[in-house]
Amino acid sequence: MSSFMGRILKAATFGESHGPGLGVVVEGAPAGLALDESRVQIELDKRRPGRSPHASARREPDKVEILSGVSAGRTLGSPIAMLVRNQDARSGDYAELARSFRPGHADYAYWRKYGLPPQPGGGRSSGRETLARVAAGAVARALMEPLEVGFAAYTVAVGQVAARRVDRAFALGDPLRAADPDLAAAMAEEIQTARLEGDSVGGLVELAVDNPPAGLGDPVFGKLDALLGGAMFSIGGVKGVEIGAGFAVAGRRGSQNNDQMGEQGFLSNHAGGILGGVSTGEPIVLRLAVKPTPSISREQATQDLEGRAVTISIKGRHDPCLCPRVAPVAEAMAALVIADAWLVQRALERSRP
Amino acid sequence: MSSFMGRILKAATFGESHGPGLGVVVEGAPAGLALDESRVQIELDKRRPGRSPHASARREPDKVEILSGVSAGRTLGSPIAMLVRNQDARSGDYAELARSFRPGHADYAYWRKYGLPPQPGGGRSSGRETLARVAAGAVARALMEPLEVGFAAYTVAVGQVAARRVDRAFALGDPLRAADPDLAAAMAEEIQTARLEGDSVGGLVELAVDNPPAGLGDPVFGKLDALLGGAMFSIGGVKGVEIGAGFAVAGRRGSQNNDQMGEQGFLSNHAGGILGGVSTGEPIVLRLAVKPTPSISREQATQDLEGRAVTISIKGRHDPCLCPRVAPVAEAMAALVIADAWLVQRALERSRP
Amino acid sequence: MSSFMGRILKAATFGESHGPGLGVVVEGAPAGLALDESRVQIELDKRRPGRSPHASARREPDKVEILSGVSAGRTLGSPIAMLVRNQDARSGDYAELARSFRPGHADYAYWRKYGLPPQPGGGRSSGRETLARVAAGAVARALMEPLEVGFAAYTVAVGQVAARRVDRAFALGDPLRAADPDLAAAMAEEIQTARLEGDSVGGLVELAVDNPPAGLGDPVFGKLDALLGGAMFSIGGVKGVEIGAGFAVAGRRGSQNNDQMGEQGFLSNHAGGILGGVSTGEPIVLRLAVKPTPSISREQATQDLEGRAVTISIKGRHDPCLCPRVAPVAEAMAALVIADAWLVQRALERSRP
Amino acid sequence: MSSFMGRILKAATFGESHGPGLGVVVEGAPAGLALDESRVQIELDKRRPGRSPHASARREPDKVEILSGVSAGRTLGSPIAMLVRNQDARSGDYAELARSFRPGHADYAYWRKYGLPPQPGGGRSSGRETLARVAAGAVARALMEPLEVGFAAYTVAVGQVAARRVDRAFALGDPLRAADPDLAAAMAEEIQTARLEGDSVGGLVELAVDNPPAGLGDPVFGKLDALLGGAMFSIGGVKGVEIGAGFAVAGRRGSQNNDQMGEQGFLSNHAGGILGGVSTGEPIVLRLAVKPTPSISREQATQDLEGRAVTISIKGRHDPCLCPRVAPVAEAMAALVIADAWLVQRALERSRP
Repeated sequence: MSSFMGRILKAATFGESHGPGLGVVVEGAPAGLALDESRVQIELDKRRPGRSPHASARREPDKVEILSGVSAGRTLGSPIAMLVRNQDARSGDYAELARSFRPGHADYAYWRKYGLPPQPGGGRSSGRETLARVAAGAVARALMEPLEVGFAAYTVAVGQVAARRVDRAFALGDPLRAADPDLAAAMAEEIQTARLEGDSVGGLVELAVDNPPAGLGDPVFGKLDALLGGAMFSIGGVKGVEIGAGFAVAGRRGSQNNDQMGEQGFLSNHAGGILGGVSTGEPIVLRLAVKPTPSISREQATQDLEGRAVTISIKGRHDPCLCPRVAPVAEAMAALVIADAWLVQRALERSRP
Repeated sequence: MSSFMGRILKAATFGESHGPGLGVVVEGAPAGLALDESRVQIELDKRRPGRSPHASARREPDKVEILSGVSAGRTLGSPIAMLVRNQDARSGDYAELARSFRPGHADYAYWRKYGLPPQPGGGRSSGRETLARVAAGAVARALMEPLEVGFAAYTVAVGQVAARRVDRAFALGDPLRAADPDLAAAMAEEIQTARLEGDSVGGLVELAVDNPPAGLGDPVFGKLDALLGGAMFSIGGVKGVEIGAGFAVAGRRGSQNNDQMGEQGFLSNHAGGILGGVSTGEPIVLRLAVKPTPSISREQATQDLEGRAVTISIKGRHDPCLCPRVAPVAEAMAALVIADAWLVQRALERSRP
Repeated sequence: MSSFMGRILKAATFGESHGPGLGVVVEGAPAGLALDESRVQIELDKRRPGRSPHASARREPDKVEILSGVSAGRTLGSPIAMLVRNQDARSGDYAELARSFRPGHADYAYWRKYGLPPQPGGGRSSGRETLARVAAGAVARALMEPLEVGFAAYTVAVGQVAARRVDRAFALGDPLRAADPDLAAAMAEEIQTARLEGDSVGGLVELAVDNPPAGLGDPVFGKLDALLGGAMFSIGGVKGVEIGAGFAVAGRRGSQNNDQMGEQGFLSNHAGGILGGVSTGEPIVLRLAVKPTPSISREQATQDLEGRAVTISIKGRHDPCLCPRVAPVAEAMAALVIADAWLVQRALERSRP
Repeated sequence: MSSFMGRILKAATFGESHGPGLGVVVEGAPAGLALDESRVQIELDKRRPGRSPHASARREPDKVEILSGVSAGRTLGSPIAMLVRNQDARSGDYAELARSFRPGHADYAYWRKYGLPPQPGGGRSSGRETLARVAAGAVARALMEPLEVGFAAYTVAVGQVAARRVDRAFALGDPLRAADPDLAAAMAEEIQTARLEGDSVGGLVELAVDNPPAGLGDPVFGKLDALLGGAMFSIGGVKGVEIGAGFAVAGRRGSQNNDQMGEQGFLSNHAGGILGGVSTGEPIVLRLAVKPTPSISREQATQDLEGRAVTISIKGRHDPCLCPRVAPVAEAMAALVIADAWLVQRALERSRP
């Protein structure tokens, strides 16, 4: 399923790393929404590689073309198709890899699934697919804009360096999306060290949805945490997701963890804005564990397609830390989930007798 | 959405805590599968309350009746409807709660969503809904049985007590599903202490899928980790999910985290059996962070339906630790996800030219 | 797919002719809707067999029990499960059929699909499955009631007797649902003649949706005619569906067929209330071609399970004309389609900037 | 819903008549299928306008570009995106229409739905959207090719001229897709006469699926006739669909209509290849009633956007008979439905114990 399948909002993504292009068809957005290419481009520019020394050196303008569904800066209610052409695709870097499985990559699993050898640049498994998500997310953001719902993701840990505070304005301008201005340099250093050692490093991304409508999410399988959690796990490299207090709840007592209420509302937000699978109106907060980039130049043991033990050293242009790339994608996925849940809730809310 | 929506396998659950009953309609199971009420009952008995001093004192036989889709011990290919009647529903315990929101419960969020006051026993938000999942999971298990795919979940931490080893056979017989025989008593003690203090305690559940087929899961939104992760987050009380090395990846280097391969296959399984969203054939391992039971007898601050600050002390029969209740549900959800992914993969595999 | 899969409204049906019971789980109805068993029973009574000499002699009370989703006469927003127990199931009548395929029945096709011999009473292919649809339709009707949308179906032809006018009030009280009071007796006669000859007879059912909201239906695959047409073809025995002028359009000129407009709106309704797949607000009118009941006592040639040529004479209790049974089912299906399309339209309408 | 939503095979279409282009993203096709642009182009050329004097004079090369999912002439298992750019879009023809509703068109209904005035060339409601269906259908055909399943549609009536026999080879080469070589000229004459009178004419299209696998379709809502019927009604201008004997069944006795069997199989095919909603393996036959093209140059009464009565005479390039345009689209829709049903059946067939 390369389609995000909300109940009303849907997004069918497509494209391979070294094919003609990538894109998405978004369905279910209402007519009359303000949208044009520049609005989508703003979001795409946030995830573009080549913006910093920490990111992949692949140079792609990633200019989006809207093929349908928009006219004169307004949505028509019909599907919004968006296309980004690939330009800087150097298959040469990958040519030597074609006969063996890159550790930590989809290669082996895809080979078992599709019966196909590793594709240039990872084919469909490349991180480039996420630009289609970000383009779709731009539509979802436009939909939620009148409600002033905010989506913000930032890097709260890189390797051994963990943020002590969150400054979102700083993060948005930082090439790493580092949340903590005091530690942004240390995070960059952590990455640079790994890179020089032919290695990569993991990290943590935090996502906040501000000012979410209350009442979103549907028991029992369409719980908002289930929808958001599943969406976050669909992002390549994410190996863990927690909501609100997250894993810390395991060691807590109920009396510590329950969010009590006063006259002004909730006195805490350990729940991360979701109770019983339904949004309370409090900020929704998630954290994502992002694995170290699997492509490293260090020599690794692996198999070739014939099952022989071989070693591999992966050249090419790779981000040594995925966090700054994951952050805008997490925002886009959250926007899609929230926008769809809101459309569904509007339908049911308005049809109550 | 009270329906599990696989692409072929679907399960529409229903029922409230204090209504006539709970159940599920399972669609998409092939004809000819060995199944009868006793097979489903075995699974239901694993999640039944009232089995131990640690669990809720509500006494329910939870006897399942198969209403359709099965004849003479074999599935017909038509929908399999299963019903469990409620018997021991004492609304009295909850009567006093009806006008204020229980902290940590769905009450407030449901009120915002549905415009309804808290329902007896939590209504649809009650943990009793999970019995429908377990019944559905029994069908999925029956489907995967010929392939010898195993689903096992067990408690690996309760409050401050964390298992040091996993003995699955022990866990299955333990009332807490404690994984570590040496620490089962300490875990029970942790719970008992919390209970005596009018409190509850959180924990960790680990889920293992053994011998999974390779090639399951669909990039990019139907990644197996996304499907499993979303399914786990749909279980009440789960606030975090990690796969394989999980949150530990944040602090790792790529050279540590990548699973290298030798001639015999993978040399490690940090990925938890899933690469690029597709199963590799290695065991799939997830861990779930389970929050402390929100219902506690300690006095808590909250609001009533009119928004006035009040205090509440929750009586009634409640599990002080949800882990042993979550474990069989996690197994059931995993079975549903894996069975559906396998059906889809078979379809595509068999139609390859 | 035994589930009606609207985008918001869903209905998972289940049950076999001679199993324990039949029923449905309806999802996506808003909270607060007036609904109880008596409301559903009214609809079920309309399709109940044994009401007239023209109908099957099987005697079933078809009493519905609501298992969930409703409390104190109001929907809770959770799934509404409804169950009807089978009582008068005489498998004996069918015992002799078990080894050969009844002409015009699902037997042979099911055998190719499921690898199973004919089930008692047709199993899942029995017309009894439609009571689950009618129960679900009762929920959809309740949802559309405040908008005063009407759903009416009636018999406009039986064999060679075609109605010349439509009197809906008469039809609702007529055991055949005959539309034309002047010809109701002739229609009954047509059926009685067929029955005496060990035969059965086909007919036409017309369905009208009055006062439908404008704007329902979604180009290009979710066109309202596509949704309604597909829903009508899902009713057993329906071999043709037409909308508005229907098959007559083939012989027409555009100047005859186009619905022109004056100041007061449309001057005609050849389109049957749908243009470009979207409702205009004019009455929606469909006609269904219903095949003669396949179960006849006349001797017919067929095959047995081993592929040998045999003859068969079908005993048992069968309606010699399906029209009066199809009519309430057509109403229910139309209600489900319209209600779901309306929920979707409300979501999009309300979220326009 | 601009997406064809099979359970495994999905196709998200997009594009407006006068926008940058039209296309489709097809998901769920297995890896390894032989496919390239030339294969898709063959199908697109069949529906291209400008091929005959009977068709619209709009000149579009309709060259398809495959953007993803295919490499070296084989599918990758990832989404197959296909794009056709619009070239010959003369909005001028439509400029005068923008303020009033064209009779028989989607204009009024869209205005009620989206709140938007008529778009140039009909926008999303234009028949040009069908080229996306035909492109998707090419993938479905490629999938069914190894099974030698055939899809053929042809014109069996135009206005008052009805074919007496069917010569498919002739039809495929005829600009009208006329089935009857003896009457092709008379059909063309019928159209020419209408055109000269500033009018248009309706007709009938027959669709045959040859050599279909048995066992396709799912009771009770996924019946193959329901899926096919719904798909046919989704084609613009189709106002009636019948299967097998179709509307003729209304006047028949069961003894006439049932398909009896001999040792060699069915002795007739009144059912049109589907019993109980499941394919029997016999040819599947449907007929579609196609309305006369709504765009005519004759003066018609209508409303403008302010609700004032006005008259309209529609210039521009329009097919005076839609049948030859509907035929290839009907083939494509049938191929999509059959291919998806077959994938689902493969999944379930193979998983029987």
